[in-house]
Amino acid sequence: MTFDFVQHLASAAKRIDTALEDILHNQAGEMEITRPARLIAAMRHGALNGGKRLRPVLMMESAALFDADPGQVVPAACALELIHCYSLVHDDLPAMDDDDLRRGQPTVHKAFDDATAILAGDALLTLAFDIIADEKIHQDPAVRLRLSRELARAAGIGGMAGGQMLDLESEHRQRTEAEIRQLQAMKTGALLRYACRAGAILAQASPEDVDSLTRFGEIIGLAFQLADDLLDVEASPEAMGKATGKDAEAGKATLVGLLGPEKTRQELVQLLDDANKLLEPFGERARVLRALAGFIVTRPS
Amino acid sequence: MTFDFVQHLASAAKRIDTALEDILHNQAGEMEITRPARLIAAMRHGALNGGKRLRPVLMMESAALFDADPGQVVPAACALELIHCYSLVHDDLPAMDDDDLRRGQPTVHKAFDDATAILAGDALLTLAFDIIADEKIHQDPAVRLRLSRELARAAGIGGMAGGQMLDLESEHRQRTEAEIRQLQAMKTGALLRYACRAGAILAQASPEDVDSLTRFGEIIGLAFQLADDLLDVEASPEAMGKATGKDAEAGKATLVGLLGPEKTRQELVQLLDDANKLLEPFGERARVLRALAGFIVTRPS
Repeated sequence: MTFDFVQHLASAAKRIDTALEDILHNQAGEMEITRPARLIAAMRHGALNGGKRLRPVLMMESAALFDADPGQVVPAACALELIHCYSLVHDDLPAMDDDDLRRGQPTVHKAFDDATAILAGDALLTLAFDIIADEKIHQDPAVRLRLSRELARAAGIGGMAGGQMLDLESEHRQRTEAEIRQLQAMKTGALLRYACRAGAILAQASPEDVDSLTRFGEIIGLAFQLADDLLDVEASPEAMGKATGKDAEAGKATLVGLLGPEKTRQELVQLLDDANKLLEPFGERARVLRALAGFIVTRPS
Repeated sequence: MTFDFVQHLASAAKRIDTALEDILHNQAGEMEITRPARLIAAMRHGALNGGKRLRPVLMMESAALFDADPGQVVPAACALELIHCYSLVHDDLPAMDDDDLRRGQPTVHKAFDDATAILAGDALLTLAFDIIADEKIHQDPAVRLRLSRELARAAGIGGMAGGQMLDLESEHRQRTEAEIRQLQAMKTGALLRYACRAGAILAQASPEDVDSLTRFGEIIGLAFQLADDLLDVEASPEAMGKATGKDAEAGKATLVGLLGPEKTRQELVQLLDDANKLLEPFGERARVLRALAGFIVTRPS
């Protein structure tokens, strides 16, 4: 079972990698252009870097609950992953988190330069809204448009970008527990929530099922952040492939800092329980999502 | 006539300003959030800065040729302007063009900081793809989706972002005239082309008319860039509200540098003539677009 799950994840991630490889090879817009080779190289560096592809896999598994064709889900999942990758490229910049390494490799601005990293992030973000409109995703343009608009909202002021801003400001001000929960629901939660919700929307699940998967995504988002905070406090930089302890160093309050590791672990157990309850109606078909939830709570890096 | 045109432009720009003001006041995504006040302030600084709103006005006038309801066009025009504004915010960053002033005001990273400017640009870009999906724009989701996807292409690898990358690389390499024309068609041309094309698409003009407006937009794009290059060589910083002569300083070849001012002016006259020919079938209805083309060729700043 455990072996199967790891295999399953690896093969799903591989499928996303192949699709992203294809997108970043062939996509050049509708005009005849001199291909901006350096920009594409930087985008590839930022997007094809051995990531776990957690968000795409969540979307694929959520959609699979409702028998969606993986050929439809993969492009949508790639659009979401492009958004995630752009955010990493920009977050790593010297003006932001100033990280030199990501997954043990030089970050985009280290491998290229700051200007190229800014543009590569912009272009990855923009490309997501090209890909999400792909005819393959759904025959009904209204469904594609809804996926596109909800992606913009998950990534924007009220989601990831807004949360990142609130997080940057946390270096200069005290945050209450409620504020930290709010900013993390935006910064990391919004895309994970979208992953699960969009899978259900794409598969044209009932509104009740879309709500269930949305709630599942919210729980996964919170659990992911709590597990990440725990790792930042407890794991070694070698295990993470990047610097650790940066939140404390930057004076940023985290939930782990406020609650302590023990209470955080208790909350994680509760979240896993809640997540599993939401999946109960789907029985055996939800076994990969169940395993994913467990993986997020207990992942070593 | 001249007075009417200036009035007309000012009132169209005002209409866009009001709509953008509304968008940047009320838009907060679908989640209940702690509004990221600093991010929104920086986005407002970058978007509500007294710009001429040339791209939105081009879209509105192109759509008006085919009797589109301005209430439909304004949100689409705002989405396009958000893309333009994001590009200015990022281009002004120290890692890019390193400009302290825009329209006589501090640039976003000067008024805030680099991290906030990066995020504000990201959020403006993302917001554009929320707004372009607005139900008000067109009842048919397929039309909104097409406008969204074409916007992503105009702004992305094969358009603005790709052109900006090629332009940055021009500091380090010699460009042929054809290469400069290509990169400028991408960097500044693609959004101006989109403005005119999208107006026709939104108004559900015939494919032939969409093609005409697309060609008109391409001509306007080239004329805009040539006029801009001339201004960069000849105008004072005071008249421009920003530094001038920066292209030559950065060692970037421009068409004006290659062709000389006299040949550039001749080409501008030819372009204006071509643009007017494309507008002939529309007679009196195209008088504002005609005046706009003339304004672009002769604008003092």
